[in-house]
Amino acid sequence: MNTFGKKLTLTTFGESHGKALGCILDGVPAGLVIDEAFIQSELNRRKPGKSPLETGRKEDDKVEILSGTFEGISTGTPIAMVIFNTNQKSKDYDNIKDLFRPGHADFTYYHKYGIRDYRGGGRSSARETAARVAGGAIAKLMLSQLGINIMSGVCEVDGIKAEKFDFDHARKSKMMALDPDRESQQEEAILDAKRQHDSVGGVVLTRATGVPIGLGEPLYYKLDAILAEAMMGINAAKAVEIGDGIATTHMKGSQNNDPITPEGFASNHAGGLLGGISNGDTLIVKTHFKPTPSIFQAQQTITKTGEAVTCELKGRHDPCVAVRGAVVCEAMMALVLADMALLGLGKKMTHLTALYLDPKTDHTQK
Amino acid sequence: MNTFGKKLTLTTFGESHGKALGCILDGVPAGLVIDEAFIQSELNRRKPGKSPLETGRKEDDKVEILSGTFEGISTGTPIAMVIFNTNQKSKDYDNIKDLFRPGHADFTYYHKYGIRDYRGGGRSSARETAARVAGGAIAKLMLSQLGINIMSGVCEVDGIKAEKFDFDHARKSKMMALDPDRESQQEEAILDAKRQHDSVGGVVLTRATGVPIGLGEPLYYKLDAILAEAMMGINAAKAVEIGDGIATTHMKGSQNNDPITPEGFASNHAGGLLGGISNGDTLIVKTHFKPTPSIFQAQQTITKTGEAVTCELKGRHDPCVAVRGAVVCEAMMALVLADMALLGLGKKMTHLTALYLDPKTDHTQK
Amino acid sequence: MNTFGKKLTLTTFGESHGKALGCILDGVPAGLVIDEAFIQSELNRRKPGKSPLETGRKEDDKVEILSGTFEGISTGTPIAMVIFNTNQKSKDYDNIKDLFRPGHADFTYYHKYGIRDYRGGGRSSARETAARVAGGAIAKLMLSQLGINIMSGVCEVDGIKAEKFDFDHARKSKMMALDPDRESQQEEAILDAKRQHDSVGGVVLTRATGVPIGLGEPLYYKLDAILAEAMMGINAAKAVEIGDGIATTHMKGSQNNDPITPEGFASNHAGGLLGGISNGDTLIVKTHFKPTPSIFQAQQTITKTGEAVTCELKGRHDPCVAVRGAVVCEAMMALVLADMALLGLGKKMTHLTALYLDPKTDHTQK
Amino acid sequence: MNTFGKKLTLTTFGESHGKALGCILDGVPAGLVIDEAFIQSELNRRKPGKSPLETGRKEDDKVEILSGTFEGISTGTPIAMVIFNTNQKSKDYDNIKDLFRPGHADFTYYHKYGIRDYRGGGRSSARETAARVAGGAIAKLMLSQLGINIMSGVCEVDGIKAEKFDFDHARKSKMMALDPDRESQQEEAILDAKRQHDSVGGVVLTRATGVPIGLGEPLYYKLDAILAEAMMGINAAKAVEIGDGIATTHMKGSQNNDPITPEGFASNHAGGLLGGISNGDTLIVKTHFKPTPSIFQAQQTITKTGEAVTCELKGRHDPCVAVRGAVVCEAMMALVLADMALLGLGKKMTHLTALYLDPKTDHTQK
Repeated sequence: MNTFGKKLTLTTFGESHGKALGCILDGVPAGLVIDEAFIQSELNRRKPGKSPLETGRKEDDKVEILSGTFEGISTGTPIAMVIFNTNQKSKDYDNIKDLFRPGHADFTYYHKYGIRDYRGGGRSSARETAARVAGGAIAKLMLSQLGINIMSGVCEVDGIKAEKFDFDHARKSKMMALDPDRESQQEEAILDAKRQHDSVGGVVLTRATGVPIGLGEPLYYKLDAILAEAMMGINAAKAVEIGDGIATTHMKGSQNNDPITPEGFASNHAGGLLGGISNGDTLIVKTHFKPTPSIFQAQQTITKTGEAVTCELKGRHDPCVAVRGAVVCEAMMALVLADMALLGLGKKMTHLTALYLDPKTDHTQK
Repeated sequence: MNTFGKKLTLTTFGESHGKALGCILDGVPAGLVIDEAFIQSELNRRKPGKSPLETGRKEDDKVEILSGTFEGISTGTPIAMVIFNTNQKSKDYDNIKDLFRPGHADFTYYHKYGIRDYRGGGRSSARETAARVAGGAIAKLMLSQLGINIMSGVCEVDGIKAEKFDFDHARKSKMMALDPDRESQQEEAILDAKRQHDSVGGVVLTRATGVPIGLGEPLYYKLDAILAEAMMGINAAKAVEIGDGIATTHMKGSQNNDPITPEGFASNHAGGLLGGISNGDTLIVKTHFKPTPSIFQAQQTITKTGEAVTCELKGRHDPCVAVRGAVVCEAMMALVLADMALLGLGKKMTHLTALYLDPKTDHTQK
Repeated sequence: MNTFGKKLTLTTFGESHGKALGCILDGVPAGLVIDEAFIQSELNRRKPGKSPLETGRKEDDKVEILSGTFEGISTGTPIAMVIFNTNQKSKDYDNIKDLFRPGHADFTYYHKYGIRDYRGGGRSSARETAARVAGGAIAKLMLSQLGINIMSGVCEVDGIKAEKFDFDHARKSKMMALDPDRESQQEEAILDAKRQHDSVGGVVLTRATGVPIGLGEPLYYKLDAILAEAMMGINAAKAVEIGDGIATTHMKGSQNNDPITPEGFASNHAGGLLGGISNGDTLIVKTHFKPTPSIFQAQQTITKTGEAVTCELKGRHDPCVAVRGAVVCEAMMALVLADMALLGLGKKMTHLTALYLDPKTDHTQK
Repeated sequence: MNTFGKKLTLTTFGESHGKALGCILDGVPAGLVIDEAFIQSELNRRKPGKSPLETGRKEDDKVEILSGTFEGISTGTPIAMVIFNTNQKSKDYDNIKDLFRPGHADFTYYHKYGIRDYRGGGRSSARETAARVAGGAIAKLMLSQLGINIMSGVCEVDGIKAEKFDFDHARKSKMMALDPDRESQQEEAILDAKRQHDSVGGVVLTRATGVPIGLGEPLYYKLDAILAEAMMGINAAKAVEIGDGIATTHMKGSQNNDPITPEGFASNHAGGLLGGISNGDTLIVKTHFKPTPSIFQAQQTITKTGEAVTCELKGRHDPCVAVRGAVVCEAMMALVLADMALLGLGKKMTHLTALYLDPKTDHTQK
């Protein structure tokens, strides 16, 4: 239940304030150069404490590879990665030990498991997404060999919508803003919420270019369904759209259908897939994040024994989870696409026989 | 890849114009009364041709149980169900044999598999959802034993939004309308699109009441993630929201967090779950369906060999897939919840030992 | 739990005396000619009633394909196959309805599920293996495209061991005997047991030739481990050996290690694999079947309510399950190898990139 | 592919001479006391270098728990465990870098993956079984709560068979010998092989007592099939028997069927299961291990480029893998049984409803 994917599987472990968190990424083909600096750079993009827009917890998020490579190359065996926790302040959580923070998983974890690691949310903390980013980084290394490129950015904060979608800008922006013209207004909304000890929601646009036709395994491992699962499973996500998503419901069929021309699709309302299989066009997914549940205002809640009590949070929290969430969206899309790539572009007998019988695919590698 | 679920698994088969379609539902506990009339009644709710709002294809969708029951009771072995196709008009598809219908999976199936059953969309046809409804019906029988009840309805058509949510009304409405006051307007939008040889989009609201606390298996089998997968995997779905979904991104944390009181949650923006685990409140999911891609207007497309051509569809099609889609949404939610129920409310050692050691759970059934 | 395999998955359904049994085989690549006559001929090899060595139940075991093919070619979608039961004599089982037959699954099914279809053993009947043979036949069709050939035969009956291993002879022999010189002696042992209303055990040797190097996915989907699972899961199997199996424990390392020469392995004690991965040599598996539990002598047992009672069986039974079991062994090996073939000879990045980028693997199939 | 189990899943990582090896054990119920001293003591039983009967490599095999527990109690989240390698002598392997050791996985790993970590066999080393023992130790903690106890011992070495089966003795014996009267003879056989720079095979008997009726999920997750998979997947295993195994093929049905009496089974030829489901009797499995492939005699092999060459091994190796293998057999049986226990004794609707509706299973744990 802590494993994602079918042929490329990411199994994660770890709690916010435990010894370490990490993952085992299994299914990576042999022969891939595992660029550790790249993996670390992806973790750096996600790590907290880089700007006032983020939580003040400062973690190095230094990743260490424990297995699966030999002389810097993947060997086809599972790649384990670990990140030790270093900057926990568990004391900050003493006062919430016996109560349930509104909007958090405290209530449900306690009732499901009968025990909970209350320090920083334990397993339910978004800190676990560091392991996803580590795994996603290796997925990206695989995908880049296939010519697939994934980028993301924040397209909306507190209702302020991007009108331009500049993914290169987002990569440099400290709030991952897609629209440079809206960036300061969006940033201000975040800081304003922070000043009011409150939080805001936001929306992340993630896209993949260079996706070949044929990824996705209908009917129950469709590309769109699995992307929806992947994105909705990120902490604080509440909605997922593929392509034009909700806007398609306001169109007529004659407007929404993407005409097909000898040069390709004339439009991309579909967001790069049809029938759950990639159609060769740019893959587009929008993920909507609720405002961070951790706010510094008094909130009404109950204790473990059911008594009404006021919750006053301490600690350090992101005022808008969409910002760092954008990096996680990329990782999840990378994991999905790399898994789908391993499952196969096509399921054709001719491919299979070619692979087995063609001397070009001889396995002795002389 | 044609199997959905982990412990309650639905594996479906069949094409729109093949001999039959059906499913194997595995994991149903022994001792459940398998009410065949109920299963058939669920299929009747979904079956086409009941009103001018739907495709004219008239299928009895008569389901036959082939295995897994003994004297009307489930035995714990796989339940196979089959529905023979009877009213195919494969001729209607001769003219699309060599071209790709815009908005359909023809293009991607052909490129992925190198072969496609073009008759009625083959495997990619929404006709396959009959098998989901059959499986979902048995899931509902299981859930009703646990006090869980699932209902759905259409809350929006062509941008016309429901303001009331009357699930009992929806069940009787021929277009599954939730709001009796908007129903005729919504119906008119569908019929109007039909007259224009076009189609419209719509939105389905699905909810479950009586859901206990504790369903959902974080981190990679979260209830919300799997519901998103389940709904996005339905034909023509383009967006999924949990609870207040997109609206949460326009709220502050202080507005969106549901306060907890000794009597329960004071609001339900979250839609019945926290951290991917059900919180005991009503579970709420919205599924957005694009307008039916099958329209009777001339459309621009290409042939298998890449030449530009005009596509003129024949056949019989739903002008708004959300209508019959609502029944499928219920089935998918039922399958998800029944699977989660089998996986367990809680993962506590005390439960396990009680089950094994308590004489009340003795297995000899004297 | 009724699904076998990872990428080629066989899900079976059906009981001995139910309406029908069958399977869904998912993962078959598109473009394979589905030779129905071959599938039927495999079922004919397994079907009962062909000689006095087998049960007298006469079933046509006529298989019908319900989905997954188009104009005789696989489309990459699930292939459902059904075999209707026609020659049940459920009355034969009325007297065992309330008792547990020794050596059978009656006792455990009843205690696990609290209900059992007592007619012919219900789901636990070896009749279910017809569905495996149907699935295995398609797996064989796939494998034959890859140059892999599977054969089997009975190498021991009631302690009478084959000294020659003539697989072509076995295919023609009515008891699947590998050694023509021992055949009449082995046959006599079976008939003698039958005359005494008893049964005998037997051993099946199954081998695959043409297996390329590289099948098997260590560490937990090793070729030998999965073959062991596949064979031990056949009704009445009690032991599985790979290659020289038990005999290797009586050898020194210096005798058992297969020397490697530029021309290949100098011996094949290992049975065609090393470290759970095929080594290119002939794959050899031995499956040991206990004597059929159904015998026509008085046996001591208890009723459902725990009272001592004498069990007197009626019905029709094989005096030696190894005979028809040999066909099932082939099917299981075929399913394992075809699954492993889809999982991949090698997990190399170069293969993946070649598949995605090489114009020879272009998916447009012009 | 590096994950074992369905509901209790063990995912392992690590190579013989890499940084570390370890595992993630997922699915452990919350509320289990995780006795770290016990886990370490299990690893100590398996660790090398305890006697001249074992390899001279001395590893502390100190296990560290990284996640999944809180104040010493399992929380229901994944338990990651790591063992750092400390006593590698990678130099010992320089001379085999370009050749394939006979009887080892070098040849197949190289051909499958195109790259291999030659140091100590890399991933294919039996050193990985330390991770299984760590996971198995926690499985044993779970099982002991259910009254299930697993023990093992060596019942045969180099053809010298035990005639007594004293599991308590085996636990104290440095060669895990079951028969104290045969122990010195068996030990001498091992030491004699060692003196001759050779190795011997051996057989391990593993049994579980206290197993309730109902474990095992037919038809494709049968208890016997999965035990066979588990045992055959251990390094150097070549055969697996359940209960009387091969001996059953020499019996008549009338001899082999275990009569059922009101007090239980009158004999246990079946080895504790029927139809793939535990029958409440002692579970008995035999695992046959080939002689260690690492011997210190000159052997004929080839290089990566296919040239004939003589292989002269250095390094430190067990002369009989069955000795330490016995501990691994226990771990694998524990993992299988704990997984089966989580999957359920019975799949009955009444259990499910009791769990959901009975106030005794209320999840608030007041």
